[in-house]
Amino acid sequence: MASQGILYTISAPSGAGKTSLVHALLERTDNICVSVSHTTRKQRPGEVDGVDYHFVSVEEFQSMLGEASFLEHAQVFDNYYGTSQAWVNQQLAQGIDVILEIDWQGAAQVRRIMPATRSIFILPPSSETLQQRLRGRGQDDEDTIARRMQAAVDEMSHFAEAEYLVINDDFEVALADLQAIIRSQRLSLPSQQLKYQALLADLLSRSDQF
Amino acid sequence: MASQGILYTISAPSGAGKTSLVHALLERTDNICVSVSHTTRKQRPGEVDGVDYHFVSVEEFQSMLGEASFLEHAQVFDNYYGTSQAWVNQQLAQGIDVILEIDWQGAAQVRRIMPATRSIFILPPSSETLQQRLRGRGQDDEDTIARRMQAAVDEMSHFAEAEYLVINDDFEVALADLQAIIRSQRLSLPSQQLKYQALLADLLSRSDQF
Repeated sequence: MASQGILYTISAPSGAGKTSLVHALLERTDNICVSVSHTTRKQRPGEVDGVDYHFVSVEEFQSMLGEASFLEHAQVFDNYYGTSQAWVNQQLAQGIDVILEIDWQGAAQVRRIMPATRSIFILPPSSETLQQRLRGRGQDDEDTIARRMQAAVDEMSHFAEAEYLVINDDFEVALADLQAIIRSQRLSLPSQQLKYQALLADLLSRSDQF
Repeated sequence: MASQGILYTISAPSGAGKTSLVHALLERTDNICVSVSHTTRKQRPGEVDGVDYHFVSVEEFQSMLGEASFLEHAQVFDNYYGTSQAWVNQQLAQGIDVILEIDWQGAAQVRRIMPATRSIFILPPSSETLQQRLRGRGQDDEDTIARRMQAAVDEMSHFAEAEYLVINDDFEVALADLQAIIRSQRLSLPSQQLKYQALLADLLSRSDQF
């Protein structure tokens, strides 16, 4: 059975629980992976090249940029980050779904290049919960927390660009929501037509035998 | 929390197991119902008006037709059958999803009037299985079975007009597929925006308070 993976962007403000949800989703779902970004940032102790990031030099990154190799890219301080379109396409061609954990700007870049991308936005259940999560362990000053809250609100203001909204109130419910989205997308006509090519031909060709 | 139901068409050839699947889906899912058709056919013993069908006279049916009251309608032998758009809209306005068990022609009529309708097609896992199911208890002659098989193939030839394909090989898997479709559609942006209007306003308005 041939099949073709589906590309997802998952966006969320800090404090929405995206990383934990995606981690649990991967543990409970077959044939799905998270994209590994290319970065010019220095490899830190414990990080594995090709697992945490594809670590590349600034020259390599710029050469990939010149070849339009990235589905999306961004500069954060002095470091570049990007998602290789070739790497993503390799996974999809093997029938593996790919998740990009990415902000709304990155998601918009990806959809422009690959319009079949499905987009999910995860939100916290209330601004109080979000505030608590952003305060963390109470080691940060009010200015830092206010800046984080503003960044979270800026990100959330783009929720309506996504196709699906998941509210992370109860972790297990939100996880089951994500699982339902992945499962239902695999049932969509283009995916099923590829997967069941032989069955569909069989079903439509047999009327003459009766 | 306001909400708006979603309209589904579920189509399948005879022998695909549609009726059993829809029955089980309703038992396990909240806020979903199957549309009750209007018909001019005579009420049979045990049938309940408003539950099995809305039983109406030919005059009533034709007057509804004249008022364009039906989402779809069909004539089978001397009887008319139709789905009332007003009844469907009442359910949807109460936040109840509505399933129309309907053939490909009816589904196409419904989509033309209500383009947001989601369409699902259920298929058997092989033509052998389909043939066995259509042979039933072995009380029919070969001509009857051949006609049934031809009708099934005719219906199946329209599978590609649906958005989702569910293969009914293992009943529980197919049921979980349908549940995932219903769940994921409820997570789509328009549904969630209505349901979480207050939360979304709250999340986006609170940045000034930090």
